Amino acid sequence: MVDFDTLKSLAQKGKTKILFYVIDGLGGLAESPGGLTELEKANTPNMDELAKDSVCGLHVPVACGITPGSGPAHLALFGYDSLKYEVGRGVLSALGVDFDLKEQDVAARGNFCTLGKEGLVSDRRAGRISTEENKRLCDKLSQIRIEGAGVFIKTVKEHRFLLVLRGEGLSADIEDTDPQQEGKQPLPVEAKGEGAEFSRKVLREFLDKAREILAGEYPANMVLLRGFSRKPDWPSLEDIFGIRCVSIAGYPMYRGLSRLLGMEVLPCEEKMESKIEVLQKNKKDFDFFYLHFKSTDSRGEDGDFNSKVKSIEEADQALARLRQLGFDVIVVTGDHSTPAAMAYHSWHPVPVMLWSKKCRADKVEKFSEQACLGGALGPNLAAVNLMPLALANAGRLAKFGA
Amino acid sequence: MVDFDTLKSLAQKGKTKILFYVIDGLGGLAESPGGLTELEKANTPNMDELAKDSVCGLHVPVACGITPGSGPAHLALFGYDSLKYEVGRGVLSALGVDFDLKEQDVAARGNFCTLGKEGLVSDRRAGRISTEENKRLCDKLSQIRIEGAGVFIKTVKEHRFLLVLRGEGLSADIEDTDPQQEGKQPLPVEAKGEGAEFSRKVLREFLDKAREILAGEYPANMVLLRGFSRKPDWPSLEDIFGIRCVSIAGYPMYRGLSRLLGMEVLPCEEKMESKIEVLQKNKKDFDFFYLHFKSTDSRGEDGDFNSKVKSIEEADQALARLRQLGFDVIVVTGDHSTPAAMAYHSWHPVPVMLWSKKCRADKVEKFSEQACLGGALGPNLAAVNLMPLALANAGRLAKFGA
Repeated sequence: MVDFDTLKSLAQKGKTKILFYVIDGLGGLAESPGGLTELEKANTPNMDELAKDSVCGLHVPVACGITPGSGPAHLALFGYDSLKYEVGRGVLSALGVDFDLKEQDVAARGNFCTLGKEGLVSDRRAGRISTEENKRLCDKLSQIRIEGAGVFIKTVKEHRFLLVLRGEGLSADIEDTDPQQEGKQPLPVEAKGEGAEFSRKVLREFLDKAREILAGEYPANMVLLRGFSRKPDWPSLEDIFGIRCVSIAGYPMYRGLSRLLGMEVLPCEEKMESKIEVLQKNKKDFDFFYLHFKSTDSRGEDGDFNSKVKSIEEADQALARLRQLGFDVIVVTGDHSTPAAMAYHSWHPVPVMLWSKKCRADKVEKFSEQACLGGALGPNLAAVNLMPLALANAGRLAKFGA
Repeated sequence: MVDFDTLKSLAQKGKTKILFYVIDGLGGLAESPGGLTELEKANTPNMDELAKDSVCGLHVPVACGITPGSGPAHLALFGYDSLKYEVGRGVLSALGVDFDLKEQDVAARGNFCTLGKEGLVSDRRAGRISTEENKRLCDKLSQIRIEGAGVFIKTVKEHRFLLVLRGEGLSADIEDTDPQQEGKQPLPVEAKGEGAEFSRKVLREFLDKAREILAGEYPANMVLLRGFSRKPDWPSLEDIFGIRCVSIAGYPMYRGLSRLLGMEVLPCEEKMESKIEVLQKNKKDFDFFYLHFKSTDSRGEDGDFNSKVKSIEEADQALARLRQLGFDVIVVTGDHSTPAAMAYHSWHPVPVMLWSKKCRADKVEKFSEQACLGGALGPNLAAVNLMPLALANAGRLAKFGA
């Protein structure tokens, strides 16, 4: 992979338009060995047609055998080595709810949870309370005042909220309080190293007060915190490639990540018609378009093979409309695999195709895990290569060296 | 990729002979999507025959999406990571004209150019003046004397010349004066950082005097300078692999690069009969033979698809003779792609085959972009792997570890 400084030195201005169509959790697995994956079972005439004129392959989001979270997987698609560019869950939560995170703020991802007898966590998600209920509880928590630190609480969705601490001398070197298992006590706030004593004190006070405020509530009678982190200072996609980037995604996490990379995040609804409309309206103002399709991943996480097949077919229908918009380069892929058979993200390489008039198409005639194995991108392309390749196909990278 | 120290520790002496037959700009693109590339269209019975007994694939010279210059592309073929081993154009020019560059010398690539009204560059190459005319002008420029620095001027070819400055306290941290676009003024000499003030002063004086001397000339009435650089101190191929290497190439740039890697550069004409004769005569004295075939790249740069096809067929004819010379390992590939459809270098992976009696041949039966996709070397092998692989096939790399 090429370093950002080199890419920056090669970046060229242009008028070409690049679409990254990211079908979340696209890669799959057969219900039993020897069968078809979700993508292989789905009827995808539009993807197959595009595959015929594309270079195809499978990409590895982070590294061989590594199951990526959505953050690292997306970072890799955008060309950021996610082993080097790590972002905390707290920061992602903040960016996803449009919280204007300052440089010194410390953000954490919060879950409302249920504490049962003896203070053990009986439900890490408090029965996935409604977003309305979450808002009511966040209003209550927002009353908390702590000497020397501002406290901001924001509803994310269902049981999830954002906590931001603001003040002098705060550190993000704090261990999670979420025990990650039910039947255990919330973990005490602990500093990871020196210099986090003040944060530790502030957070212990916050949690004591939260426990008091939520004592009469049920099922959300406590909170768990994780992913303490600060907004990182990374080069934006525009810094690196000189492209104006836009993100069309419905879920907070993808929007947050996009913002972190300097993309303009446009308001849109989750359904594809809305997203494509937004894309079409804004096409003239940007060079690079990240379009996110979510339900494939959700159905995979549900373990619902047939519904994931249907989601993929919906994604395929949308592709027909996307092709009409006249992009110069189209990349279709997932951020990672989410096989319904595992009901979870997985390490399996993800089908990818890149179309442009100059791509030098291979002989792959179908967009699937099996068919892409024979493609020009190979069976295990590091995902970070996709951005430079897309830029090259768009005529936006100059020659390296004489 | 294996580091040089490890390779050095594994290198074995032997009597085997390795041929790298580099067909410049070999990789191509169909004239329109869905068609055949230059190599696919060419009649290449000898390459196809060799492919049947070889391991085949496509290599990526620098990195996915990166269009390499000839220097980086060749460095990669010889096993040097060109993102790490960077060489300035000035140094390459010096080595290519047999200029005995000293350690402290500062070299630059010069172009004669045409300045039009208001001092704007109207032709960066002064109409590609003849080499004879270049020599006459270089003789005139050679009269320039500057206090504290020796000035050497050498004709390269057509509009290109070499400038070398020699003296105490010179630095190569100088910006190009070539604006890289017509219709702009030559850029003033600027230092890239501290410590280059003396170089800046010397160069400004040189350019003032060059402008005076060339004032009455046309079209070559000024010069542009770029690629200020010093001879790098790299391990030679012999240091790393313990092989005596020879370069049989007609063009200065390839000869210069070969010399930089410690190869013996033999005099030869550009036509293949001459090169093969030189190769044959010197075969007993070397272990590794780099043979360069140029016109494929030139015809690609011309944008002349059919002529590139013919050049490839010439390269194929030469292969028949090369096979008769009894090499133990033959690698046939290009340094990069130069699709006629783009009339320029490109990022597309380059077909490669490696033949030896122990190569474990794959089922590829034709040497082409498409056919090689299914080969044992894969569709995107990093080019730096080819040297170790060739050495292994030549029985010249010992076991790593116990």
